[in-house]
Amino acid sequence: MKQIDGGITAVEGFAAAGIFAGIKKVEKPDLALIFSDTVCTVAGVFTQNRFPAPPLLLNQKHLRKRKGQAIIANSGNANAFTGKQGYRDAEAMAEAAARALTIPIESVYVASTGVIGEFLPIEKITGAVPRLASQRSQSGSRAAAEAIMTTDTFLKEVAFVGPMGRQEVKVGGIAKGSGMIHPNMATMLAFLSTDAAIQPRLLQDALRQAVDRSFNCITVDGDTSTNDMVLCFANGRRGREIRSKGPSYHQFSALLEAACLALAKMIVWDGEGATKRVEINITGAQSDRAARRIAESIARSNLVKTAFFGQDANWGRIVAAIGNAGVPVDPERMDLSFGPVLLVGKGAYQGKEAESKVAALLRQREIDLRVHLYSGRGKATFWTSDLSLDYVKINAAYRS
Amino acid sequence: MKQIDGGITAVEGFAAAGIFAGIKKVEKPDLALIFSDTVCTVAGVFTQNRFPAPPLLLNQKHLRKRKGQAIIANSGNANAFTGKQGYRDAEAMAEAAARALTIPIESVYVASTGVIGEFLPIEKITGAVPRLASQRSQSGSRAAAEAIMTTDTFLKEVAFVGPMGRQEVKVGGIAKGSGMIHPNMATMLAFLSTDAAIQPRLLQDALRQAVDRSFNCITVDGDTSTNDMVLCFANGRRGREIRSKGPSYHQFSALLEAACLALAKMIVWDGEGATKRVEINITGAQSDRAARRIAESIARSNLVKTAFFGQDANWGRIVAAIGNAGVPVDPERMDLSFGPVLLVGKGAYQGKEAESKVAALLRQREIDLRVHLYSGRGKATFWTSDLSLDYVKINAAYRS
Repeated sequence: MKQIDGGITAVEGFAAAGIFAGIKKVEKPDLALIFSDTVCTVAGVFTQNRFPAPPLLLNQKHLRKRKGQAIIANSGNANAFTGKQGYRDAEAMAEAAARALTIPIESVYVASTGVIGEFLPIEKITGAVPRLASQRSQSGSRAAAEAIMTTDTFLKEVAFVGPMGRQEVKVGGIAKGSGMIHPNMATMLAFLSTDAAIQPRLLQDALRQAVDRSFNCITVDGDTSTNDMVLCFANGRRGREIRSKGPSYHQFSALLEAACLALAKMIVWDGEGATKRVEINITGAQSDRAARRIAESIARSNLVKTAFFGQDANWGRIVAAIGNAGVPVDPERMDLSFGPVLLVGKGAYQGKEAESKVAALLRQREIDLRVHLYSGRGKATFWTSDLSLDYVKINAAYRS
Repeated sequence: MKQIDGGITAVEGFAAAGIFAGIKKVEKPDLALIFSDTVCTVAGVFTQNRFPAPPLLLNQKHLRKRKGQAIIANSGNANAFTGKQGYRDAEAMAEAAARALTIPIESVYVASTGVIGEFLPIEKITGAVPRLASQRSQSGSRAAAEAIMTTDTFLKEVAFVGPMGRQEVKVGGIAKGSGMIHPNMATMLAFLSTDAAIQPRLLQDALRQAVDRSFNCITVDGDTSTNDMVLCFANGRRGREIRSKGPSYHQFSALLEAACLALAKMIVWDGEGATKRVEINITGAQSDRAARRIAESIARSNLVKTAFFGQDANWGRIVAAIGNAGVPVDPERMDLSFGPVLLVGKGAYQGKEAESKVAALLRQREIDLRVHLYSGRGKATFWTSDLSLDYVKINAAYRS
C-alpha cells in the first residue's frame, strides 16, 4: 500500500469541481461536485444526532438502492433545523445536479455544512450548478475539497493504492472538519472513491468498520453533529467483485481504513486553534471497549487538553480522566509514558527527572501518550488536539 | 426559611479557623478546621471517580460509625495519587487534629484540594495544627472558607434558618470549587453544619437528595474529581430527633437543599474565567431523567458555552446539544426561550426580531434559558457558566 496524489479524483472515472456560488459571505469556494462517469455502488454512515439535517434524510432515501453517481455539497450553510423547506431545498440541489449531469435524481447525494437554522440561498445554488458541472475535471479533487471547508485551515484530501488479489486498486477521498473539544458538534464530511468492485453489503460493512477505527476515534460515538456523514462510491472498474469476507475483502478494507484514518488525523490536527497533535494509545485494558472508553475520556478532557496547550506534564489530570472513564482500573497497575519516557510506573510517579524529560517532549508539536493497564489485551488509539486560546476566540465569534 | 450570616459557624456549637501553614507557594490561608464542641451525627457523599484520594478513603472508614467532631482540610495539595504514603499522611493530619482537640482520631474527617500527585508537606501541616486549633472561633467560618480555596475567586459560605416542627433550626456551610467545563475535574468540597437532631440514616438520605438536586446539577453524575466530597455534621441541639420521613424531615431537607443549592450556584458562578451565569430549565420532557440528560448536554457543550461568551443567540448549537442528549425529542414540538422571549416555537425559528431581543438579553450577566418539549411532565434545572478566554489561560497555567 502506498500513498499517491490526486485525492478523490486519483481514482479513474471520477471527476470533481468546486466554485463560489455566493453562499459564503466572503468570496471563497462554497459549492462542490463529485461525479462518477458510471453508476457506483454506494455506502454511507450518518450522524447519530437525533436531529439529522434534511440532506441526510434525502441521502438515506437515495441510499436504499445502494447506487449513485454524484455528490453535491455546499459550505456556508448547514441546511439544519430548516424543516420541510430544508428538505425541499436539499431535493432542489439534487435535482439541479441531476439535470446538469443528465442522471436520475436518485443518483445524487447532498451534503451541507455551515450555519445552522437558516434556509439555503437555493436559487444561488441551483443557478450555479451548470457552471459547477461544466468545470468538473479529473484533477478537481483539490477544488472540491476547498469548497467544503468552513473553519478548516487546510484542505483535506488523500489517496492510496494497494493490492487486491492480483490487481491494484485505489481509494481516494476528501474531507472537511476541524476537531473540537466535544467533537460532536463539528460537522464532519468525508467522501471516498474507489475502483474496487465489491458487493453493496460488503462495502457498507467495510466502511462502517473503517469509520469506527478512524473518524469515531476522534469523534465520540453516537454524539455527532446534525450533518456528519461519510459516503463511499465504488465504481467497480478493478478486480473481481468481492463477494465474501476473504483475503480481497481484507485487503480492500485495509486500504479504505488507511484513507479514512489519514483524513481523520487531518481533521483532529486541524483542531480549531490547535497547537498540538496528540496520539493516545491504551494497551493492557480488560477489553477493547474498556480501552476505548479510557482513551476517549482522556481525549475529551478539557483539563488534559489545556495542560497540553500549557506544555505541562500534568499526569494527575490524565490519571483523573482515566478514573472517570467508568471502567474498573487498578491505579497501582498502570504505566503512563510520553514517547519512551515512563512518567508513572505501576502507579508510582517516577520523579522530577522523568517529568523534566516529558516537559521537553511536550514542547514538540506531536505528543505520544501511552497508558498500559496490565489487566488484559484490550487496546485502543484515539487522536486529539490541545485546547488553546484560539479555540475560544474562533468559537465565540463564529456562528456555526 | 431565611438566609442569615455566619456560614458554617452560624450554627451554635461550631467553631472554625483558617491559617497559612506553608502548603501553598504564596502566603494565602491553606489549612482549615471545623470543630463541634459535641459529638455530631455525620453524613457524607463522596466522588464517583475510580481513584478516590487517600483522605476520602480515611473518611469512609471514619464514617462507618456516622459520628464525628472535626474536619481538617488543606488547599494547595490534593494528596491524590499518592498511594500508601498519601493514606499515612491523611491519617497524620487526622491524628494531629485529634491530639490538638483531645478527641478520638475516628472523630476527625480530612479533606485536601490542590495539586495532584505530590506528597503533602506533612510536617508543615502537623506543626501548624496546634496554632490552627487555638485560633478556632465561633466567627471563624470565613477564615475556614478562605483556607480551602484554590482557583476560587471568592469565598463561599451560606447559612439558613427555618422552621422544623415547633422549633427553628439552622444549616450553615462553606464550599470551594470553581465550575469548569467538564466539572468532573474541579475538586468540589462542601462542609455543612446543623443543629437539627436527626437519625444518621435519615441525615444521609437528606444529604444525598440535596446533593443530587444541587451539586450534581452543576457537576456530572458519576463523573467527578478524585477528591470531591460533601460532609454534613448535625449536633442535635434543636428539635426532637427526626425518626421518620414526616413533616419535620421534609422541613429539614428543604433547608439543607437550600444551603447546598446556594453553595452550588456560587461554585458554578465562580466558573474559571466565567463572565455569564446561565440557568437552564427543561420542562415537558418524557421524564425527569430525560430532562436531566438534556439539561446536562446543553450545560456541558463547549460550543454552547463559547457562544454565551460571545453573546451570540446561537440556538442551533443549543438544539444540536439537545439532539445529542441521547433521549428521544420531537424537533417540531420544542419551544426554546431566553427569559420571556420565545426564539424557537414548536420547532420553528421565530425570526430576526426575536433574535435581536435575545441578543440584548445575552449581554446581561445572568442568562435564563428555557426549553419546553411537550412530551410529558419531566423537568430539570442545571446551572452553567460560559467558556471564556480566561478559562484556557487559567487551566494552561495552573497545575491542579
